[in-house]
Amino acid sequence: MGRILTIGIAGGTGSGKTTITRRIQRQFGGQVCTLYHDNYYRSHDGLTMEERAKLNYDEPAAFETDLLVEHLAALRRGEAVDGPQYDYTVHNRAQRTLRIEPAPVVLVEGILILADDELCRSLDIKVFVDADADVRILRRIVRDVRDRGRSLESVVNQYLTTVKPMHELYVEPSRRRADVIIPEGGHNEVAMELLIRRIQAHLQEEGQNGKAVL
Amino acid sequence: MGRILTIGIAGGTGSGKTTITRRIQRQFGGQVCTLYHDNYYRSHDGLTMEERAKLNYDEPAAFETDLLVEHLAALRRGEAVDGPQYDYTVHNRAQRTLRIEPAPVVLVEGILILADDELCRSLDIKVFVDADADVRILRRIVRDVRDRGRSLESVVNQYLTTVKPMHELYVEPSRRRADVIIPEGGHNEVAMELLIRRIQAHLQEEGQNGKAVL
Repeated sequence: MGRILTIGIAGGTGSGKTTITRRIQRQFGGQVCTLYHDNYYRSHDGLTMEERAKLNYDEPAAFETDLLVEHLAALRRGEAVDGPQYDYTVHNRAQRTLRIEPAPVVLVEGILILADDELCRSLDIKVFVDADADVRILRRIVRDVRDRGRSLESVVNQYLTTVKPMHELYVEPSRRRADVIIPEGGHNEVAMELLIRRIQAHLQEEGQNGKAVL
Repeated sequence: MGRILTIGIAGGTGSGKTTITRRIQRQFGGQVCTLYHDNYYRSHDGLTMEERAKLNYDEPAAFETDLLVEHLAALRRGEAVDGPQYDYTVHNRAQRTLRIEPAPVVLVEGILILADDELCRSLDIKVFVDADADVRILRRIVRDVRDRGRSLESVVNQYLTTVKPMHELYVEPSRRRADVIIPEGGHNEVAMELLIRRIQAHLQEEGQNGKAVL
């Protein structure tokens, strides 16, 4: 395998990161593999369920980012990795892992990925997806209440006690490390085309089939 | 001539707009032509030099943007235009015009271009170049004092009385219309490559030679 292009997709909760990631995945299929920072939440086997539920999951220390950096380096060398999976129902890392095969383009998605120095150095293109805080919390409420069956009260409580303060402390400052800032995430067709053309150019240069249906 | 790609490059004073514009021009040569909003400052033949010097040149009303939109439409139709030129020494439009030949890519550069609805609708890609206000004023001071021979006092005075308030009133809000925000302008190699690859893809599709030396 030739040169690997690594693209980080960061941004606050509800900013539209996942929409961008999914659109790139759909467009390029097996030529893209993805590491989700959320899957690298630390395992807390020594704690009870109650103790785990009280942890702060919105700060950089909640993640085993070293392991993600290692896995990214392995994918860059053309080696497959067994990526961890996270089980939200028990607030702990799952027993199962997910085999991730190397691909000419590696996406790394996560709210806090640009808060880590070493991870930043491993990313060729650092994207920060941006949306207003009010739009982001509305999206999160709809997702968590309607799609994930959580109570409105618990979403509001978590947002105000950790999500928002951690956003201001870690996510917002990490925007400064971005190479490019995309307003309105995956519904921004002009920015999507910039990313898609860049990936196509990479695949063509590396001798892959870089065709994408725009 | 086939389809024309129009790219707007906006951002505050000293943000790095011109560096981006020049790099695209160097890379693509005659395949790119450029309209500078600054050249469309209104003519004030009825006013004295003293009166003209007192006008606010940092608000949208200072520009004859309608004429720029007309010229952009003409270039899109493949027609050459006689672009106005501005003479800063007399604060007025110059007698001479500059012939601008149509090209497959048209750049439109200016601090306030995204503050105009109609101009925004004529742009395929709206770029906002971003830099911190302190970095921007430092660049402006160096440019105006060292390169243009102005006094430090006059630069500071103009900045505080019109440049800064008009930036906050018109430039900063216009950022919301951008498709993509580029921090640190023309020295941001990753973002430059995104733009260059996008232009190359356009030229290739339109049957032009889209080769660029990266």
